Amino acid sequence: MSGNTLGTLFTVTNFGESHGPAIGCVIDGCPPGMALTEADIQIELDRRRPGTSRHVTQRQEADQVEILSGVFEGVTTGTPIALLIRNTDQRSKDYGNIAQTFRPGHADYTYWQKYGVRDYRGGGRSSARLTAPTVAAGAVAKKWLREKFGLETRGCMSALGEIEIPFVDWQHVPENPFFSPNAEIVPQLEAYMDGLRRDGDSVGARIEIVASGVPVGLGEPLYDRLDADIAHAMMGLNAVKAVEIGAGFASVAQRGSQHGDEMTPEGFAANNAGGILGGISSGQDIRVSIAIKPTSSIRTPRQSIDKQGASATVETFGRHDPCVGIRATPIAEALLALVLMDHALRHRAQCGDVVVETPRIAAQMPSK
Amino acid sequence: MSGNTLGTLFTVTNFGESHGPAIGCVIDGCPPGMALTEADIQIELDRRRPGTSRHVTQRQEADQVEILSGVFEGVTTGTPIALLIRNTDQRSKDYGNIAQTFRPGHADYTYWQKYGVRDYRGGGRSSARLTAPTVAAGAVAKKWLREKFGLETRGCMSALGEIEIPFVDWQHVPENPFFSPNAEIVPQLEAYMDGLRRDGDSVGARIEIVASGVPVGLGEPLYDRLDADIAHAMMGLNAVKAVEIGAGFASVAQRGSQHGDEMTPEGFAANNAGGILGGISSGQDIRVSIAIKPTSSIRTPRQSIDKQGASATVETFGRHDPCVGIRATPIAEALLALVLMDHALRHRAQCGDVVVETPRIAAQMPSK
Amino acid sequence: MSGNTLGTLFTVTNFGESHGPAIGCVIDGCPPGMALTEADIQIELDRRRPGTSRHVTQRQEADQVEILSGVFEGVTTGTPIALLIRNTDQRSKDYGNIAQTFRPGHADYTYWQKYGVRDYRGGGRSSARLTAPTVAAGAVAKKWLREKFGLETRGCMSALGEIEIPFVDWQHVPENPFFSPNAEIVPQLEAYMDGLRRDGDSVGARIEIVASGVPVGLGEPLYDRLDADIAHAMMGLNAVKAVEIGAGFASVAQRGSQHGDEMTPEGFAANNAGGILGGISSGQDIRVSIAIKPTSSIRTPRQSIDKQGASATVETFGRHDPCVGIRATPIAEALLALVLMDHALRHRAQCGDVVVETPRIAAQMPSK
Amino acid sequence: MSGNTLGTLFTVTNFGESHGPAIGCVIDGCPPGMALTEADIQIELDRRRPGTSRHVTQRQEADQVEILSGVFEGVTTGTPIALLIRNTDQRSKDYGNIAQTFRPGHADYTYWQKYGVRDYRGGGRSSARLTAPTVAAGAVAKKWLREKFGLETRGCMSALGEIEIPFVDWQHVPENPFFSPNAEIVPQLEAYMDGLRRDGDSVGARIEIVASGVPVGLGEPLYDRLDADIAHAMMGLNAVKAVEIGAGFASVAQRGSQHGDEMTPEGFAANNAGGILGGISSGQDIRVSIAIKPTSSIRTPRQSIDKQGASATVETFGRHDPCVGIRATPIAEALLALVLMDHALRHRAQCGDVVVETPRIAAQMPSK
Repeated sequence: MSGNTLGTLFTVTNFGESHGPAIGCVIDGCPPGMALTEADIQIELDRRRPGTSRHVTQRQEADQVEILSGVFEGVTTGTPIALLIRNTDQRSKDYGNIAQTFRPGHADYTYWQKYGVRDYRGGGRSSARLTAPTVAAGAVAKKWLREKFGLETRGCMSALGEIEIPFVDWQHVPENPFFSPNAEIVPQLEAYMDGLRRDGDSVGARIEIVASGVPVGLGEPLYDRLDADIAHAMMGLNAVKAVEIGAGFASVAQRGSQHGDEMTPEGFAANNAGGILGGISSGQDIRVSIAIKPTSSIRTPRQSIDKQGASATVETFGRHDPCVGIRATPIAEALLALVLMDHALRHRAQCGDVVVETPRIAAQMPSK
Repeated sequence: MSGNTLGTLFTVTNFGESHGPAIGCVIDGCPPGMALTEADIQIELDRRRPGTSRHVTQRQEADQVEILSGVFEGVTTGTPIALLIRNTDQRSKDYGNIAQTFRPGHADYTYWQKYGVRDYRGGGRSSARLTAPTVAAGAVAKKWLREKFGLETRGCMSALGEIEIPFVDWQHVPENPFFSPNAEIVPQLEAYMDGLRRDGDSVGARIEIVASGVPVGLGEPLYDRLDADIAHAMMGLNAVKAVEIGAGFASVAQRGSQHGDEMTPEGFAANNAGGILGGISSGQDIRVSIAIKPTSSIRTPRQSIDKQGASATVETFGRHDPCVGIRATPIAEALLALVLMDHALRHRAQCGDVVVETPRIAAQMPSK
Repeated sequence: MSGNTLGTLFTVTNFGESHGPAIGCVIDGCPPGMALTEADIQIELDRRRPGTSRHVTQRQEADQVEILSGVFEGVTTGTPIALLIRNTDQRSKDYGNIAQTFRPGHADYTYWQKYGVRDYRGGGRSSARLTAPTVAAGAVAKKWLREKFGLETRGCMSALGEIEIPFVDWQHVPENPFFSPNAEIVPQLEAYMDGLRRDGDSVGARIEIVASGVPVGLGEPLYDRLDADIAHAMMGLNAVKAVEIGAGFASVAQRGSQHGDEMTPEGFAANNAGGILGGISSGQDIRVSIAIKPTSSIRTPRQSIDKQGASATVETFGRHDPCVGIRATPIAEALLALVLMDHALRHRAQCGDVVVETPRIAAQMPSK
Repeated sequence: MSGNTLGTLFTVTNFGESHGPAIGCVIDGCPPGMALTEADIQIELDRRRPGTSRHVTQRQEADQVEILSGVFEGVTTGTPIALLIRNTDQRSKDYGNIAQTFRPGHADYTYWQKYGVRDYRGGGRSSARLTAPTVAAGAVAKKWLREKFGLETRGCMSALGEIEIPFVDWQHVPENPFFSPNAEIVPQLEAYMDGLRRDGDSVGARIEIVASGVPVGLGEPLYDRLDADIAHAMMGLNAVKAVEIGAGFASVAQRGSQHGDEMTPEGFAANNAGGILGGISSGQDIRVSIAIKPTSSIRTPRQSIDKQGASATVETFGRHDPCVGIRATPIAEALLALVLMDHALRHRAQCGDVVVETPRIAAQMPSK
């Protein structure tokens, strides 16, 4: 199987390097007949775009997407949708000094050992820039899921370093550069980030993603359970080191009498399961939490080695994200949408004729 | 893609229901020429087997594996290896009362909604019994990885409910039914479990799995990064709600100056990465941690609904695991071995001709 | 990808060796809710079974299929269906003399070179015995296609060696051991075969397979066109050396004004296309023709080499098919059904919401 | 699985429509470290290019390929190689009259029925223009196979309509627009084509493709036999109606004593097998023959229906190939190279450690 393709029926094949001519993706398996324009996709790319606040990398990329195929007279044809984003603002000279050394915490060393050749400019293929095509494809999936099921994927930051961010309301999320669901705490987050920038260091973050309006029945046990595929997509995102579903690690200390969500004719009484039971969606909100590690590109000099194996010191200059987690939210939303899209088609393929009359319980979640 | 198949080159196709005639799997893509007998596989199945201590389910299954194909004169032929395990000790009458109701925390409700038909006996396909074929296949992978690379996958329990289990030594792990790496704490764990059994309740657990002797270069970015596929396999295991690699959730509050593992000519100075950088193995130990939720089958009566959607009370009798986490260790080891096996073949396919002379640093881990 | 798995959504994973303990397959992705018993499958296996006439191999195998999983209370559950057929009548001693040599026209030499190890008994994995699991799986597909669409796959012999068999009527096909659609010619075929048996030689055959009641729209351009997948399945069958769709090789000398099938409101005026246009089914009968080569196992001594590369003579004894094409018909029908089944699910996955009101032309074929 | 992706390890994802902004492909799994430039690819595209003689379509496309990713400092990196070809000479107005009708022999009707929407301009996705990305990807495969094994794939025309073209020498093939291996017969072919153009009709062709220098051991029985995958690729090519390997349909009337290729210490004595035994390459030349149907776009008026199902007459103007088979040779070579490339990686993945010392027979083919 192609490691650069995500999904089995709604597939996304990602290509490009950080400093190459262009990046993009090819979507295959999109149902025909859906209205689609560049604007539908651009709106999600703009949420992710670098250079939009002082807290993120200062590389100025327009990230303008072009649809090369798969859409005719404004409607998807069912044929592959190729999306292209030209790279315009590569500052290759900022990376010249790392051609011979390996930056700690980055993929430089492992790419060199695996392939025997490495495009060192801007991290090459390992750069977070390559999340842009994923977000573009995610926009297509989001649209179809919304129109078909009323399904929405929404994310927010739940912790910045050691600062916990209590959830207040989704409406705050688009109003600040942190995707924080809490407006009051934003000045504290900004001060914290300014301090980090002065120190030349970085910190991690925790992101929460929720899918609502999910139909029951998505997931392909045994091995392609819905939560398994969500974990695969999330852990595959640059800088992610952990994934939780529902109660997550808190489940370890819970009792079965606590954890198991009871059911009533009006709906579920709780959602420790995070919307997935036995690897299949229950209709409840799917709740996912991910841990993003601190950026490895920092101004502090670090100990490393060079290609010959001799000691070397590495110091990164140029443009960097002091917290890559700040831009992770739209990417994580896109990934959740892509997994749900793929599973919607897989479920339809095998179970398209299944009719279950009862029971139909409303999948209700306790209020957050 | 087949949801009941794990892997892309070394594939495992799992079949069977908890109370059907038999369970098993078909392994495809195994390299030829490796010595293999039933004994090589049985040894891992016996580690997982129910009924071996008072702390696990009392279903007595011999779990004797039979090799039906793929081995000739004691050596793998490169053709599919079919493994069969007959079910012998099904007590169907213990499950008769749940045919019409859905047990909270179980897959009953979601399987019914997805398929419109459900084998309710012993959980049917959703039963943890179906981890046996996974363990059997994992035994084959473990053997090949050991002989080819000197690679070992080892697991242990790191927490039972709220009791943290400090790591002492791997040698303790096979000496107690908990797979605890700490002999002193075992009486405390046993007392805790006896209490749970009296209460008719259950609790979760945390398992740690380590792979040592891992060659550098395994992993297929962008989407099939090694950590992504590990997360996929682990989160797909029954009852798992969270997966961490290396520093995991602790990364959130770490600084980049802390988290990024520096390199020296003698090796890495730390292992927050957990052995994976940019989705590719670095040669360091791969460290994974998983959260297992408490069993949903408990003696406490629970609120639920029946097939028509009316209120019902569910009480489980029969044989159960008060903590399914107790038997998870050999299964998690098997899953890690299967993912590494698949990636070893994928890496060889694309990069079999790559020769990287330098640098060759010893991938050393700080002592635990 | 697993080379022993056919299909992408309705997958069949085949295992077993000719003289191993058992052969079988695992079907994944079968829609739930369909009635299924061993009898539904046995009926197709019996059509293929060796030892049913003097014209085929005299190995007496009951070929009794056992369903190990995936069916509950007589209905498919949507979980994998494992089918097992025990080998009972292996005469290993008949093959002992070829352990060191390679039989011309067989896979002995190539299996040895590829795998470095070879189960030489009865051809091992390369034996035509391994078409039995394919036929078993095909029975499941046939049943679903018939019930869902009224689709039937039917085959017959159209040539035995140089004897052309003019088509008379489908009703004759089950009445003779050749699957000939022509009753009058059967004595001639029998005499021909008796002559071959006396000579210790073999001959090829041509089989025609037709699918009727095919819904329009099956096929996944560009690369998984329906005809491409049909060719893949057929050419993969032991002893097949050529595949034609519709006019086939006759297309070379046809004019466009001849070949292109015109359309009228009552239906298509011809069927040179063989039921597939642009790789997608048109609703017309799908017509496929395959060439089966003569058996390589013959009593005539043949020139070959041994494992050290020295000259050797090979003479085959034991039980053989003087014309393997005689039993190919039910296997080819099964393969066509499996491909159509897989494509039915693929089409539903992507285009399940597509509604095309007009035009609805009856897909009529000129009479044969 | 994605229908627009060919291969399993060396994958090609094809995108684009005949009259869209661009066409292209993404290659994944290419081994790193191979020198690659646009020129390496352009040379194959130029062999296929329309407008190069009066005998092929007069659409003037430069078909200039641009490498967007996967190559750094002139060498493949192991990351996806995206190839882009901009469409420049679309005459949309030539197709306006078929928006409401379906051309006989074309995919118009089936695309409409499958997707409910159709890009009718120039055949949209079903146009032979989409073979250009396949040829581009095939150039990469050809290079790797040549450098790794000394493997070459070469094709030529063996029949134009009813005119048989006896093989004389490969050196003639690049010297005429027919890819004829026979210089003497070219004037006869030209006169024949001129006649067809005047009549406004078209004819089919037969193409032969040979791979030499093939290593032994390629192919993945049971279902992904090498000949099965070759048939899949060839039958999937626009306008192909039949595929033969080796003796092909002539096998039907052959005796086993004739067909089975004997072996000697100096090599094989014949090659009826066409280089593949039991689905695995034997080291002999692989010989494939394909039938290309006559173009359906002809000047003769044809009977058809419109979108409402009423009778209509269709007459095609604009630019067309009177014999699409004339340009098929480089495409068929590319397809064979792509299949062999994929299988080389698959074989290496599973059998990379296999060492077979004897026998090593030279795989010799009888002279043609």
